[in-house]
Amino acid sequence: MWQLYQFPLCPFSRKVRLLLGEKGIGYDLVRESPWERRDEFLDMNPAGRTPVMVEAAKGLTLIDSWAICEYFEETVEQAPMINGTSVNRAEIRRLVAWFDEQFHADVVAPLMHERMKKRLIDRASPDARVLRDAMKLAVNHLDYVDYLLDHRNWLGGATMSLADLTAAAHISVADYLGGIDWRGHAQTQRWYAALKSRPSFRPLLSERMEVITPPPHYDKVDF
Amino acid sequence: MWQLYQFPLCPFSRKVRLLLGEKGIGYDLVRESPWERRDEFLDMNPAGRTPVMVEAAKGLTLIDSWAICEYFEETVEQAPMINGTSVNRAEIRRLVAWFDEQFHADVVAPLMHERMKKRLIDRASPDARVLRDAMKLAVNHLDYVDYLLDHRNWLGGATMSLADLTAAAHISVADYLGGIDWRGHAQTQRWYAALKSRPSFRPLLSERMEVITPPPHYDKVDF
Repeated sequence: MWQLYQFPLCPFSRKVRLLLGEKGIGYDLVRESPWERRDEFLDMNPAGRTPVMVEAAKGLTLIDSWAICEYFEETVEQAPMINGTSVNRAEIRRLVAWFDEQFHADVVAPLMHERMKKRLIDRASPDARVLRDAMKLAVNHLDYVDYLLDHRNWLGGATMSLADLTAAAHISVADYLGGIDWRGHAQTQRWYAALKSRPSFRPLLSERMEVITPPPHYDKVDF
Repeated sequence: MWQLYQFPLCPFSRKVRLLLGEKGIGYDLVRESPWERRDEFLDMNPAGRTPVMVEAAKGLTLIDSWAICEYFEETVEQAPMINGTSVNRAEIRRLVAWFDEQFHADVVAPLMHERMKKRLIDRASPDARVLRDAMKLAVNHLDYVDYLLDHRNWLGGATMSLADLTAAAHISVADYLGGIDWRGHAQTQRWYAALKSRPSFRPLLSERMEVITPPPHYDKVDF
């Protein structure tokens, strides 16, 4: 059985979990708080980041959400999530990178720093200006998702793909941390509601990060 | 013919160029300075980053170095650079992510900010403390490369792969900016000399970024 090292609000682990869920691959969760820089974890992954996946019986360790997703995409045929022609696949990967890099840097990283790390580690108050900036950038990102959905059924094209799972993973963490204002984004909201109702998403939405409570709409499919 | 939008010190464009060179794919260079945020470039890539590749005759635009590398790996069989078993391929991708994220954040990004962007954009002097910290972290990274080469012929395994090309791309930019102290890293130096002598690498080493001069050893295979 695979073990997945992660913490509930890690967006990169959420991306991997959504992919595993869609593909029907079982795994056990192992709680890892990368900011504690545990020696045994750093020995496994010198980058000190989640997710890491271990299959002890087979002696396998997979590190980095990109490498993990490509691995399961190559080895498990069911529910292909980097699908279509090479050009489609390039577009899916562009969007995965967009959410993992841009959306993460603009929205998720500042929200997590202010609302999670400051609370858990520094016992400090969040900086209202940083939160406001992140929430403003989140609006721009949702505008871009609206724009993509004007032209396509799903973010990467005609079918659901790793682009949708990655976007939903990051948006769900931002939403948990109160950083998403859904007003004026009906199209993105419908797309996100469709993802939220998938069996792969339900276990994520029911999890809680200690001391941090999400807004009431967070785990509702109608929101 | 493909066009590659880039600037001479963009490590992500260098990674793509090394892959294209190894695979024997021709392209024309188009100079793009992403910090100028040119409207036509932002229309092509809303993320505003290099590299972008365009094949106008076929109506193709490829964005993001990861998506570009995977595209050519899928469509051009010659010189496979994400090679071996699925587990090998996961290890190659882990190392690509390591250099694109960790090495870039620790070493290349601060060096480029202090030695290139401050000079070109702000007309300001570099911060000696930031430079010193980046160079110290570069030593740790070269120690890690030494460690990998203790166990393997190439970074990702028995054969040259995208892990080597990505590492060499980032190290070459750091070296151009005077951030690499080669003393005490004989093993990594030998590996890097082997890469420098490849035909795919020569055109990169002969290019210069305006106003910034590399150290004398930069383009020498014996250094």
